[in-house]
Amino acid sequence: MSAFDQKKAFILESIGLTSSEVPDASPKGTIDSLCLPTINVINAHPDMVTTSSCSGRVSVFLEGMKKADTQIGAKGNEGRWLFVTHHPEELSSWYDQVDFVYEEPKPTEDSQRFILFKFEPLILHVKCRDLDTANLLYSTAMGCGFRESGIGSNNIVGIRISIKLDTPIGYLQDDKLVSIVPKSYLELITKLSLDRFTENFRKMETLTRAIESMGKPQKAPVVESKEERRLRKMKEGMARRESVREEKEKKRREKELQNQ
Amino acid sequence: MSAFDQKKAFILESIGLTSSEVPDASPKGTIDSLCLPTINVINAHPDMVTTSSCSGRVSVFLEGMKKADTQIGAKGNEGRWLFVTHHPEELSSWYDQVDFVYEEPKPTEDSQRFILFKFEPLILHVKCRDLDTANLLYSTAMGCGFRESGIGSNNIVGIRISIKLDTPIGYLQDDKLVSIVPKSYLELITKLSLDRFTENFRKMETLTRAIESMGKPQKAPVVESKEERRLRKMKEGMARRESVREEKEKKRREKELQNQ
Repeated sequence: MSAFDQKKAFILESIGLTSSEVPDASPKGTIDSLCLPTINVINAHPDMVTTSSCSGRVSVFLEGMKKADTQIGAKGNEGRWLFVTHHPEELSSWYDQVDFVYEEPKPTEDSQRFILFKFEPLILHVKCRDLDTANLLYSTAMGCGFRESGIGSNNIVGIRISIKLDTPIGYLQDDKLVSIVPKSYLELITKLSLDRFTENFRKMETLTRAIESMGKPQKAPVVESKEERRLRKMKEGMARRESVREEKEKKRREKELQNQ
Repeated sequence: MSAFDQKKAFILESIGLTSSEVPDASPKGTIDSLCLPTINVINAHPDMVTTSSCSGRVSVFLEGMKKADTQIGAKGNEGRWLFVTHHPEELSSWYDQVDFVYEEPKPTEDSQRFILFKFEPLILHVKCRDLDTANLLYSTAMGCGFRESGIGSNNIVGIRISIKLDTPIGYLQDDKLVSIVPKSYLELITKLSLDRFTENFRKMETLTRAIESMGKPQKAPVVESKEERRLRKMKEGMARRESVREEKEKKRREKELQNQ
């Protein structure tokens, strides 16, 4: 069994075992049901296996406490999710589940911890058996509009598209979650997120169909260098001579047997 | 001259010629001065050349008119830029340059054309001479935090990072540009964009230093298969026999010359 086949078997077994009791490494702990059809099509191909996936989601989170070198929007250091969903039907009135105080924005400090509302589209990482397969999957994804895709290390293809929202909607002030936009604005970005979910699932479906009919990479006709041709001819010549020698040897033995 | 060297020479010549009188294909028409140091370091490497670049920018645009299948946020069909800058110092009070009417958001229609405020970070595309160089540049960029990088077709590396803002701030209504957020909110996202510019330039500087000291890819020690070893040995044997034959021939000729 090749290293790729071993890794694929191991991943497929892990996916099969994953459940709410046996979570995987993602915040959610299980594979999003909405990208299972895509994952299944990819894993049905003998030369590919998914290594991570997110079907697309809306998330609202409070940034962590900031040090001088903290990255923008980092979740570490007591950052926390206020709301996450992968399912458009769970999106309606999400803001009523958060204990917001609505206020007009005031001037902020450098250490201010913002509340960010995000729509993030489908993202997939797919390990391929070889670079030819990775290249084929890459161009298939690009052709379906996943224009931020790329091949990384070990023939892993990242499939990415830029359907996004990334909107600051408030901050933490004296332990209060302040929404600096009115509820009508939250309603509006919720509607825009629903539009993005629709677009995201349409693209996901296009991608799934394209991967399903992708097949295997076409082998380019072999172009030999002069040196390669010389070695091949030499090898063919040796094989011919060897077979002639064997034939002679065989006949010699037969003769010997007849003479005994 | 190899195909890569020809392409590189052609690109470098085009970059040299580009100016406000002779624009390139980008909306801006020239290379952003802020990523010139990065571009120069990349192009000083014998095996790399930049094919496109943006140093990072803030843009505000009005979506185009929508058809059923129009992509979200598309600029086509009379979409237009209301404001663009690559320079943080040009950002202050940008909203006073746009003829906004400030109103509370009302329920929107499917055909509504939104006004989107975006911060987009550095993006670079770099053509490499070979896959080894592309792999090395890819891991250098990933190591500097450009986690959405990837290798595309023809050894072109896309260098991407996810420092973003993507915020709907208004819509078009009866030819009026309506801001559905108060000016204090526009001030706040402007400040957050300045923070992102700072972070973006810090990452750009890290990347530039890393590429400067990157060098060339280390060639992996050659691991031979049994068959490759057999062919190599055969080739070496033939070369040895050939040189013995030549030596004999040489001596024979020398003898002939002596005997004449």
